[in-house]
Amino acid sequence: MSVTVIRLCAVARWEPNGRLRLREAALELYAERGYEGTTAAEIAERAGLTERTFFRHFGDKREVLFEGEAALQDLLVATVNGSDASEPRAALAQGLQAMAVSLAPRRDALRRREAIIAAHPELRERELIKLASLSAALADALQARGLDPATARLAGEVSIALFRVAFERWIADANEQELTEHVGDALGQLALFA
Amino acid sequence: MSVTVIRLCAVARWEPNGRLRLREAALELYAERGYEGTTAAEIAERAGLTERTFFRHFGDKREVLFEGEAALQDLLVATVNGSDASEPRAALAQGLQAMAVSLAPRRDALRRREAIIAAHPELRERELIKLASLSAALADALQARGLDPATARLAGEVSIALFRVAFERWIADANEQELTEHVGDALGQLALFA
Repeated sequence: MSVTVIRLCAVARWEPNGRLRLREAALELYAERGYEGTTAAEIAERAGLTERTFFRHFGDKREVLFEGEAALQDLLVATVNGSDASEPRAALAQGLQAMAVSLAPRRDALRRREAIIAAHPELRERELIKLASLSAALADALQARGLDPATARLAGEVSIALFRVAFERWIADANEQELTEHVGDALGQLALFA
Repeated sequence: MSVTVIRLCAVARWEPNGRLRLREAALELYAERGYEGTTAAEIAERAGLTERTFFRHFGDKREVLFEGEAALQDLLVATVNGSDASEPRAALAQGLQAMAVSLAPRRDALRRREAIIAAHPELRERELIKLASLSAALADALQARGLDPATARLAGEVSIALFRVAFERWIADANEQELTEHVGDALGQLALFA
């Protein structure tokens, strides 16, 4: 009975958005029961939704962890598109910082997500694919702004590698420095190698 | 009958090393029959070896494409270990150029390999895992040379991203510029973003 009460309270706290509720429910269950030990039906139940609703939002339980990926990429591309075309370094920095601002409120959830991904090769591979996709989108956006294709591709790859490192530092950071500061630090350190 | 003659001639051309023969046979068959349409037994037969020998060298037909990966990583680490510890940028450049020199004689085989990998998500994922491993090894080597862990990780990620781009340019290059030159160019272009 008390479990039911707690669950109802939790439902009340959750956002009305089904995708976000499923994401949060999945993170809880992956931490409690392990990624392998959790089914899509259980995630739906925890979120107070039907299994059918789950599969309307996601192809499988893996994809729940990659919710928001398309929106992040769109934000990156839109920011670069809206930047000063004559300054590729500034366009890059603005694109990365826009992603940082967008991820900042989710540090706790992203930390839990990171722990699950780090423990599963299948998820690490999926994460690498996502980063490669971000890199390609960034390169395309820079090329559309007039950068030659080869340099745009280099800039995309290097920038996303840099963002990944800044993100890791942020996730691991006990001092709670903001992601935007970590991105700024990494951009500054790049000068050591260029 | 003529097929048999051709095969015997081909065997005579091949290196005595079983791993290299299997690698070359796999590239041929993947191009002829497709990656999915090729079995380990067929690769062994084309290489003039038994299936048992195949599985002594490789866990499966995917791993044939990643032959030499450990040696490349060892070379990178050894080069960084042997470099001037006070100059991380030079250590990096030397490590990347050592890999470039080692891969240079294999451009034709690497081109064919790249086409197969590009066409298969499973192989692209495996390739990304390999690059992540190279990056981690490079970061560890730089850290062992006195670089702080955070900067070493950044340097590892950025350098391998850069190497990957230089490698792609080399594979696509109709002018046959050397891989070492492509790596040098990419290192120079990094300055545009740092």
